[in-house]
Amino acid sequence: MSVLSPGRVPFTAPPIAAVDQTLKPRLRACLDGKAKPLGSLGRIEDLAVQIGLIQGRIDPQVDRARLMVFAGDHGLNEEGVSAFPSAVTSAMVGVFLSGRASVNAFSRAAGVEIQVIDAGVAAPLPPHPELISAKVRAGTRNAAREPALSWDETAKALTLGVALAQAAADDGADIVILGEMGIGNSAASALIMHRLAPAPLDACIGAGAGHDEAGLTRKAAVLRRAAERTDVAHPLEVLAEFGGCEIAMMAGAVLGAASRRRIVIVDGFISTAAALVAIRFRPEALDYCVFSHLSDEQGHRIMLNALGVRPLFDLGLRLGEGSGGVLAAPLVRAAARLLTETVSLEEVLASMPS
Amino acid sequence: MSVLSPGRVPFTAPPIAAVDQTLKPRLRACLDGKAKPLGSLGRIEDLAVQIGLIQGRIDPQVDRARLMVFAGDHGLNEEGVSAFPSAVTSAMVGVFLSGRASVNAFSRAAGVEIQVIDAGVAAPLPPHPELISAKVRAGTRNAAREPALSWDETAKALTLGVALAQAAADDGADIVILGEMGIGNSAASALIMHRLAPAPLDACIGAGAGHDEAGLTRKAAVLRRAAERTDVAHPLEVLAEFGGCEIAMMAGAVLGAASRRRIVIVDGFISTAAALVAIRFRPEALDYCVFSHLSDEQGHRIMLNALGVRPLFDLGLRLGEGSGGVLAAPLVRAAARLLTETVSLEEVLASMPS
Repeated sequence: MSVLSPGRVPFTAPPIAAVDQTLKPRLRACLDGKAKPLGSLGRIEDLAVQIGLIQGRIDPQVDRARLMVFAGDHGLNEEGVSAFPSAVTSAMVGVFLSGRASVNAFSRAAGVEIQVIDAGVAAPLPPHPELISAKVRAGTRNAAREPALSWDETAKALTLGVALAQAAADDGADIVILGEMGIGNSAASALIMHRLAPAPLDACIGAGAGHDEAGLTRKAAVLRRAAERTDVAHPLEVLAEFGGCEIAMMAGAVLGAASRRRIVIVDGFISTAAALVAIRFRPEALDYCVFSHLSDEQGHRIMLNALGVRPLFDLGLRLGEGSGGVLAAPLVRAAARLLTETVSLEEVLASMPS
Repeated sequence: MSVLSPGRVPFTAPPIAAVDQTLKPRLRACLDGKAKPLGSLGRIEDLAVQIGLIQGRIDPQVDRARLMVFAGDHGLNEEGVSAFPSAVTSAMVGVFLSGRASVNAFSRAAGVEIQVIDAGVAAPLPPHPELISAKVRAGTRNAAREPALSWDETAKALTLGVALAQAAADDGADIVILGEMGIGNSAASALIMHRLAPAPLDACIGAGAGHDEAGLTRKAAVLRRAAERTDVAHPLEVLAEFGGCEIAMMAGAVLGAASRRRIVIVDGFISTAAALVAIRFRPEALDYCVFSHLSDEQGHRIMLNALGVRPLFDLGLRLGEGSGGVLAAPLVRAAARLLTETVSLEEVLASMPS
């Protein structure tokens, strides 16, 4: 499989610069010269280096963070892959807009702004001044029977994701955080992971929002049928075959944010699947991604390993919405400030009595 | 050993209420009734329960966090237990006051206020409007030869710690974060851990701010001499024997914050040793402590296990200053808001079309 083959999805990614690795020794030297034991801030130092590389400067500025919650429904849900009906997706969009979802509370605690996007919710949503309407279609087709999205729909979702992330960057967001809501989207993500990690299908299937043993068995059977239906391997074709709109738009947002040299904080299983699509399509996008946490959803660890990355923390989260990504924002801000706001050892030594 | 024996240190702890465990089922039910899959916020939910128990209410309010950085020197440093001279302690106090230490940068990123306390720095410190002068003595005695602190000095440090944490609470701090600076204090902490965890001395000794093989061997030999000098087991006597002023004051701060039902965020190896003293002396103080991170300092994992607690994250930090504790503050705030600012499932279901 060539990940750079053109594929059949009529989408052209925006140019993404590979980060300039020659800056790395300068960033390391800056941190090593600070008034603290060498390497004593561990992974926060690694994060500082990554942020410096992303912005291409030794004095990165990180302040504003925007969570983008993409919502969409899945035709796969007709097959009972989730314990919840698709109507929950639109209900939760209403909760996000009312400011009373878990991730709203977390965002207020972490100083993160939220944008809610209808990427492809099945139900028509009442207009709301804070809802971005970018509905590609009213829920995907049933991927157990047919492609979830057409090539054109996939391209449209990707393009909208790029544009929304670029607009966030142009609005002054230094960090874009991926969030999502979509009943059935852990099923679609499992299929994407299976094909693109790649990993055996069984290792990709978890309880999602919650399943008993019978539900999990049913989910696995449906996903086997979907996987057997097609053998596509190009990342954008995999995305089209399995969906969904919100996953495609998140993949686009990764590319859009990276094209503007912005930090992307990836949340849990579903947003990692979206990042996986983006990275398999444009490997240079990986450098822009900060992986916030290890989800409790089975499969997440293997997907992160397949990407060669380590998440910042493991708090047993499995909610989605961008909840873990939001909790990581203060760590990213702290890492940047380590480079710009702290004194060098040299300066401290010069001030000490000899 | 009875941890509640009066001991020879003339100190009376303020009354600390054990948290009311009967509130726990109500807090769990509140979280379980939220519009999210059951238990899907993992350890953030556990943290929310702990915060509710600490404040004794189902709607805890957590906003202001104060980091208290206690600084002190150690007579043990005469023996070469650290790679750095004691003069670094006073130099770093100057850096904290100038706002340019790592923990200052982290605190700005996390919205945490800082207080710097001279608990027992060897050098005289120039007056500064933001420096709290609470010097118990100018560095402890050399614990390899004699008790680091007298019983009276120990009581004085504890009492000052209680008073400072109570004052923080009375000023409106919802969270007290323990921070410290003191060349040689990982050595004192190792001795405290050895006696109070308890654990074999070798398991308690780590590289601290940095050591080569020879330095570590020297540190171990010195600590063996100190440990063999005395067989005290009462937590406050262990504190007196091994010091230091900043550790004693942090132990007092744990008791003072707990007496005011405030959340205490514990940082790394040294502040955990201080919390260990407080908890072995008053076991009910444990309920008030949130353990922020697993330090890279050898011994920290065993000390946390001895306390029966799990830290929130593991970022390979080993700086001290309260750096890891500050990074945990946004998580604590997020956990509290989960209880108070999010909608119930019942309310969402009522709003859905039937």
